[in-house]
Amino acid sequence: MRFLSSVFSAAVLVLPLAALAQPALQRADLIITHAHVVTMNARREIIEDGAVIIRGSRIIAVGPAALAAQFTALKTIDARGNLVLPGMINTHTHAAMTVFRGLGDDVPDRLRRFIFPLEKNLMNREFVHWGGLHGVVEMIEGGVTTMVNSYYFEEEFAAVVKKAGMRAVLGQTVINFPAPDAPEPYGGLALAKKFATAWRGDPLITPAISPHAPYTVDVEHLRLVATLSAELDLPVLIHLAEMTEEMTLLRKEHAMTPVEFLDSVGLLNRRLVAAHCIFVTDSDIALLKARDAGVAHNMVANIKSAKGVAPALKMFDEGLRVGLGTDGPMSGNTLDLIGQFGYVAKVHKLDRKDRNVMPAIKVVEMATLGGARAIHREADLGSLEPGKLADVIIIDHESTAMMPLFDVYSALVYAASPRDVRTTIIHGQVVMENRQLLTVDTAEVRAKMRDITRRINAAVAAGLK
Amino acid sequence: MRFLSSVFSAAVLVLPLAALAQPALQRADLIITHAHVVTMNARREIIEDGAVIIRGSRIIAVGPAALAAQFTALKTIDARGNLVLPGMINTHTHAAMTVFRGLGDDVPDRLRRFIFPLEKNLMNREFVHWGGLHGVVEMIEGGVTTMVNSYYFEEEFAAVVKKAGMRAVLGQTVINFPAPDAPEPYGGLALAKKFATAWRGDPLITPAISPHAPYTVDVEHLRLVATLSAELDLPVLIHLAEMTEEMTLLRKEHAMTPVEFLDSVGLLNRRLVAAHCIFVTDSDIALLKARDAGVAHNMVANIKSAKGVAPALKMFDEGLRVGLGTDGPMSGNTLDLIGQFGYVAKVHKLDRKDRNVMPAIKVVEMATLGGARAIHREADLGSLEPGKLADVIIIDHESTAMMPLFDVYSALVYAASPRDVRTTIIHGQVVMENRQLLTVDTAEVRAKMRDITRRINAAVAAGLK
Repeated sequence: MRFLSSVFSAAVLVLPLAALAQPALQRADLIITHAHVVTMNARREIIEDGAVIIRGSRIIAVGPAALAAQFTALKTIDARGNLVLPGMINTHTHAAMTVFRGLGDDVPDRLRRFIFPLEKNLMNREFVHWGGLHGVVEMIEGGVTTMVNSYYFEEEFAAVVKKAGMRAVLGQTVINFPAPDAPEPYGGLALAKKFATAWRGDPLITPAISPHAPYTVDVEHLRLVATLSAELDLPVLIHLAEMTEEMTLLRKEHAMTPVEFLDSVGLLNRRLVAAHCIFVTDSDIALLKARDAGVAHNMVANIKSAKGVAPALKMFDEGLRVGLGTDGPMSGNTLDLIGQFGYVAKVHKLDRKDRNVMPAIKVVEMATLGGARAIHREADLGSLEPGKLADVIIIDHESTAMMPLFDVYSALVYAASPRDVRTTIIHGQVVMENRQLLTVDTAEVRAKMRDITRRINAAVAAGLK
Repeated sequence: MRFLSSVFSAAVLVLPLAALAQPALQRADLIITHAHVVTMNARREIIEDGAVIIRGSRIIAVGPAALAAQFTALKTIDARGNLVLPGMINTHTHAAMTVFRGLGDDVPDRLRRFIFPLEKNLMNREFVHWGGLHGVVEMIEGGVTTMVNSYYFEEEFAAVVKKAGMRAVLGQTVINFPAPDAPEPYGGLALAKKFATAWRGDPLITPAISPHAPYTVDVEHLRLVATLSAELDLPVLIHLAEMTEEMTLLRKEHAMTPVEFLDSVGLLNRRLVAAHCIFVTDSDIALLKARDAGVAHNMVANIKSAKGVAPALKMFDEGLRVGLGTDGPMSGNTLDLIGQFGYVAKVHKLDRKDRNVMPAIKVVEMATLGGARAIHREADLGSLEPGKLADVIIIDHESTAMMPLFDVYSALVYAASPRDVRTTIIHGQVVMENRQLLTVDTAEVRAKMRDITRRINAAVAAGLK
């Protein structure tokens, strides 16, 4: 006993000395180390052999790989040969429309001839569930950690997104005709109120309301949306300055631009995310900035429909809150942002006839910090910094097209594929690791999608009304 | 003995009966079956459960999956869940420039400020070997089975391409200043002659000559190239109507367009593949057609450099021989054609302000049959038909973004990634299977590329002269 006790005393003596030489390890949950860390912090620091330390839902430290030695965690990811970036924010989509992806491409007047009839006849809660989940899988696989989504049955979709572990701003659609989830025109308004109440305060899901567009929602209902948004501090998602018919209608009926019109009904404010903004004037841009609204730039969808090139570069350079969006998969076909990168960089160069504009770094800024700013979440999202939420993606920079890696932004914008994303972490949870989804049974989703495809094919063959 | 003999007789009797009921199997080398076959034949037939049968270097049969039962082969690929297409033809590239990929993007006057000095100081036989091989790997991984390449040390590259089992038209560069492989101006002319003689008749490699451009090769040497081309039936690869300085120079010095100028020196003929053709007039287009020249359309490179949109749609619709090209990886960054698809479809829509032009099928036509026609090889390449060379690719149509599959062309053009190509067959040889290269040690190539990147970084840091 005496012997043991003296050993014990000696041990006690030694321990503080050891602690002095080697301070106690701090507890973390996840360590990503030996990564090429692209922080997107204010100095746009890149750490070639770096570490990102996560505890719970937050990033607690970012620095050189040596930093990892100060922490202990149950899980450590060795990210050698990989880039680590903040998760990307898709600021405009309609994920459930994956069920219709590839139907009726390359035809005129698609919205009224194809999209609305398909939705009227076929869209339902089941399709929103599985089509939406397929879209969630595609985004997680492509490194999108937050989506801004507008569609029907948004409460159904919220449960799907939450289960998959993705972050989202979800806007229940309000429109002037009977919708798949509301038999009466504008029935979405009541659904939105119910949805907002049910999901208030959720850490991943931010409920929102989505009046479809200034040409499909009348002044009275736009005002009701504005009131509800103010009451519940509800984000408002809308299509804006996108269609020539919209421009003509508002000029004719209100002698206003769409931006001015939204301002007149009380919707142009910090809660708004305006998708497209193709046909905005300089004074519209100034007004969007003064009202601190967010803008979603959807280059691929906008040029596929030959609508035009939004002045997103000008808006971004003037300090507006501009993020990137994919639009729905009937418009832009894919839901990841890496697939937008090259278009954003190159089509603005073509449009401005200047190869020096819209350099690669600006495109990556739009996809991360820009998106965070568009939804007024830049305090929590958009960069890898201590204190921010742990939305982190790991991208293989040794895929053939990404080699050599002289310039990280150039490789990401001009050569990367969404298939190069290896691992996706949202709110501190690893939702995909080495391209395996951990929160979704992808085989089940594929089987459901095959079945839904068969049924849609049969319905289309039988003729839509 | 007697017993055995009668058994043997019985067997002999039975065999002809069995053969009558079930005809003898035909010998093949490779059967691809249960594929969604996109033939690109004259009727653009698609066989949803189809088979492609290969013997030696040729396709011997294409039809429904049941067809496979008539053949016996050592190897059968079950391609369920996959598309099978003719291999794609990259009609303009400089593969070895992968070693410089991502250097000095988004800066003005890159050709003279960056590309020429980098080549002058650093390009050598070793870089052509490994950078070129890295490019070959990228193309095979992306479903490109034939490339049209212009660069230096083309004989070195020919050996690399041949070993990898890829098909190529390889043009030795001729230019008016000392080049990496020729200390005297125009030294490439002699190299081209030697190369053409050495590789004449090779089943995979077609030697060619590549006068760089009408503004970097004088009239005298263009005429020498024309003579050599006629003598040896040598394809001629050139950059044409690409640069504003080129337009100005030829107008000033010859009062001609670049197309007219090439005609005047005897180069505008069926042996020519003209890359870019951005600034061509209607009468240039008529002349290109009358002379039966090939055109390589490089949309990504052309808009990244803000040069403009070539009238490729008009040229294609008027029956010119138009294929797709990537340009070199310092210009377009990637070397696969799937990465060009969306740009070709969408930027032409934007340019023409019409969402109905350049439908997806036309883009796939350009990448396959169009490319074959551009190099006057449509009798052998560009579609899956009995008698054609067995250049065949297998693409996963159940990658997330490719689902659902309502329209094959739409899925390929608006949603596929080059990473979705699973298997590549060239000249009957499987060169990549399930994304594993079988003819190239990719780990060795990656190691060499890392080493080369370090050396280029050091040279650039030390300052180029």
